[in-house]
Amino acid sequence: MFPYDAISFIALFNEYMYMKMLNREEKEEGSGLRTMDAEQLREEAHKMVDFIADYYKSIENFPVLSQVQPGYLGKLLPDSAPDHPEPLQHVLNDVQEKILPGVTHWQSPNFFAYFPSNSSIAGFLGEMLSAGLSIVGFSWITSPAATELETTVMDWLAKALNLPDIFYSTGQGGGVIQGTASEAVLVVLVAARDKILRRVGRSALNKLVIYASDQTHSALQKACQIGGLNPELCRLLKTDSSTNYALSPDVLSEAISSDIASGHIPFFLCATVGTTSSTALDPLPALGKIAKINNIWFHVDAAYAGSACICPEYRHHIDGVEEADSFNMNAHKWFLTNFDCSLLWVKDRSALIQSLSTNPEFLKNKASQENMVIDYKDWQIPLGRRFRSLKLWMVLRLYGLEGLRSHIRNHIDLAAYFEELVSQDARFKIVVPRTFSLVCFRVLPPPNSEDHGNKLNHDLLDSVNSTGSVFITHTVLSGEYILRLAVGAPLTEKRHVKGAWQILQDKATALLGSL
Amino acid sequence: MFPYDAISFIALFNEYMYMKMLNREEKEEGSGLRTMDAEQLREEAHKMVDFIADYYKSIENFPVLSQVQPGYLGKLLPDSAPDHPEPLQHVLNDVQEKILPGVTHWQSPNFFAYFPSNSSIAGFLGEMLSAGLSIVGFSWITSPAATELETTVMDWLAKALNLPDIFYSTGQGGGVIQGTASEAVLVVLVAARDKILRRVGRSALNKLVIYASDQTHSALQKACQIGGLNPELCRLLKTDSSTNYALSPDVLSEAISSDIASGHIPFFLCATVGTTSSTALDPLPALGKIAKINNIWFHVDAAYAGSACICPEYRHHIDGVEEADSFNMNAHKWFLTNFDCSLLWVKDRSALIQSLSTNPEFLKNKASQENMVIDYKDWQIPLGRRFRSLKLWMVLRLYGLEGLRSHIRNHIDLAAYFEELVSQDARFKIVVPRTFSLVCFRVLPPPNSEDHGNKLNHDLLDSVNSTGSVFITHTVLSGEYILRLAVGAPLTEKRHVKGAWQILQDKATALLGSL
Repeated sequence: MFPYDAISFIALFNEYMYMKMLNREEKEEGSGLRTMDAEQLREEAHKMVDFIADYYKSIENFPVLSQVQPGYLGKLLPDSAPDHPEPLQHVLNDVQEKILPGVTHWQSPNFFAYFPSNSSIAGFLGEMLSAGLSIVGFSWITSPAATELETTVMDWLAKALNLPDIFYSTGQGGGVIQGTASEAVLVVLVAARDKILRRVGRSALNKLVIYASDQTHSALQKACQIGGLNPELCRLLKTDSSTNYALSPDVLSEAISSDIASGHIPFFLCATVGTTSSTALDPLPALGKIAKINNIWFHVDAAYAGSACICPEYRHHIDGVEEADSFNMNAHKWFLTNFDCSLLWVKDRSALIQSLSTNPEFLKNKASQENMVIDYKDWQIPLGRRFRSLKLWMVLRLYGLEGLRSHIRNHIDLAAYFEELVSQDARFKIVVPRTFSLVCFRVLPPPNSEDHGNKLNHDLLDSVNSTGSVFITHTVLSGEYILRLAVGAPLTEKRHVKGAWQILQDKATALLGSL
Repeated sequence: MFPYDAISFIALFNEYMYMKMLNREEKEEGSGLRTMDAEQLREEAHKMVDFIADYYKSIENFPVLSQVQPGYLGKLLPDSAPDHPEPLQHVLNDVQEKILPGVTHWQSPNFFAYFPSNSSIAGFLGEMLSAGLSIVGFSWITSPAATELETTVMDWLAKALNLPDIFYSTGQGGGVIQGTASEAVLVVLVAARDKILRRVGRSALNKLVIYASDQTHSALQKACQIGGLNPELCRLLKTDSSTNYALSPDVLSEAISSDIASGHIPFFLCATVGTTSSTALDPLPALGKIAKINNIWFHVDAAYAGSACICPEYRHHIDGVEEADSFNMNAHKWFLTNFDCSLLWVKDRSALIQSLSTNPEFLKNKASQENMVIDYKDWQIPLGRRFRSLKLWMVLRLYGLEGLRSHIRNHIDLAAYFEELVSQDARFKIVVPRTFSLVCFRVLPPPNSEDHGNKLNHDLLDSVNSTGSVFITHTVLSGEYILRLAVGAPLTEKRHVKGAWQILQDKATALLGSL
């Protein structure tokens, strides 16, 4: 126990230290971190830059898939937030020792899981600048540059993708940056829902039908749940290997006819260019025609593959987009723009605005009231929005479209190289033809395998990922457990792809040998 | 016209330059920016730090409210993205010359509009680190540290706010970081909607009733629109000056009784602690009791004022939160954590998860399938999510709770100082009692003013904001146009508040003199 005087002294000392820290006028060296101060920000942020650069320098030394056990971090951290400030170096030490072991390194050259979510130097710089300005651009007036740069870069991208004029801001449509493809499909689903309900009456909500293939991203199902649509009328139409898992226009037509005959109301079709499981390509022109005849909102989800369509040789995959009511691609997947940055174009912006606008008194201002400007708050779910166009603009400026095309082609070449390696090993097979930078493959089961090799491939995946040297993920197609290798991290080179294949081969050898 | 050979030479030169840029093996100085490279990132990011630090150094030199005209930026930028890369310095020059004039400076010490959305050195560093790691933490496995740090800091904050145990992750509930309060209210509304529909059947959707005061943020109305609820049953109950614009429990009880009598189904109540217009305080204990009796989901929106409740002397404003099913505060408003970072706690996480979970094959993994971990993707609208807990953690570590309390108290003191200045000038009146850091006031109209001084106050606002020296906004209460001054930028000092008041006085003198 301390004597009373010692406690008083400690209390006094603490008070003195915090007065030092908090006093805005205090200039003395060694005082704590101010909430904001240009020179302190400069000093500390330079340290953070070095920390991050050092992270990239050593990124290959970490297990790419974190190998920690559930609950690991709770044991390492205290139960309460600190009462008193700590220096940045303590926090960075904790990041190094406690956080990084629990990070799965999406930017590692050995990350081949899911789809990529690639960052880049330009994307990172754009994110920094956006965090530095720290504006909230819900209405034009809250930072005109944020709205106007977004309109500009969305038009630039529409041009780079050769989208029809109707998607440009100069017409009835326009582009907007959403957080994710999930939000993109939700906002257009709600717009389409309200559009049809205005015609047929609210009481028909339970009769509205949504169409998509069974390969469609789960974001659609989630959007239906959120939008209050009847889950039984979310039709995920069956696909199979005969179409390489693309939605068949005939299957769609039949489903629509049958629904109409039952008194349901078809209103929404989601097609995908590059599905998550296997980059399947729904046939946009035929699907678009059916949507048009039936007066159905036609949404095209090209979240992953859209990026490739800035290359002339891949653009044909979105032929038919002229029939779409909305088109989405994620710049944060394969376009070097830090997550989150999901690009949505619509043909009829008024449909979005009718569903999503609010006009509270406290946000009214001359420019908005006179309809002189875009207020992107009315094109999205949240009110607030970050200055996300900055990072996309910086990516476009610092790499140029030619640089971005080379980036895409480089990854596709690497995937083709991997595909070639797999196809040379008779123990493996390529499951569906590769189109972009994803390869779907599996190790062939021994004869009379009870589950057609599903356990074998599952074990191979576990075995490979537990090395920490590479991270790949899986899917299931027609009941078969399939491995997926997606190239997309900016640091990935041929040697990493080769290394991944080596591990796959070695682990397959071990597993097949033990059977 | 160039002769053919010159064109060939230019084409060859261009090709050479881009080969130089794109060749990953190219080590020579002066080659272009790679997509990722530790040393290039270090070099360029240090430049960006200096750019941002210089911005803060000169932030008072900009007009705080951007003075540009609609369409200004389109005229300054080209029609297409560049084909070829440009150096960072060109982009930074454009930021300085073209973007910054169109920025409304939310971090300026003279920003008193809306509610603050304050950044800080710690928040900025956290945002940098999050962008540097650039992970996508939808499932635990995609970066265990992202999920576990989020759980930890949400528990830390629950403790700092003295929330009941039921909101901690150790019970049936827990906390999650949403993007915005709009998303927070949407996800709990959907969870509550589905919970009641499971009991009464989907066909009752059109009968569900939502209650809130007419001072509630427009995000609630938007959430109802998105969630497919009957807009006619979104009851925004009238408030007035007799309760300082708080929702009256009697008015609520009557509305519920009347709805039940008409065969409607009450299911959701949103109360606000610190409304956007005037920081009105809905009486949580009384409202909570009514919600409980009627089996209504009780959501508490303390987006702005929640931050103040880490100070013991303000904590009583959320007394009654123990009756709430969900509680929300925005760390990105007044808690020094960069936008976006909205903290949502729920009592029953299973309700959220039932409404928002999806389980596609391609995301399945052992930890998730065995329910060993939290997958926050099932607590939110999007699938993807950034590592947002990092910035909140850094704010807590680098300032400590005592530092954060001082930050809050400092702003409240500054607002009290402003209130005092206003109340000393007989031409003005304080419209509602000040509780936190927002002051609602107006200049008194001359006798026989036709519109009770609404035009006068509107003109005063315009006149003040057009100086560029200060930015304040307005609201309307009981038909009266009111000016709002919200203190919240980290750089704001007494001299800025005094300066704002000086401008208000001067402009009022000019306007009143010309009447």
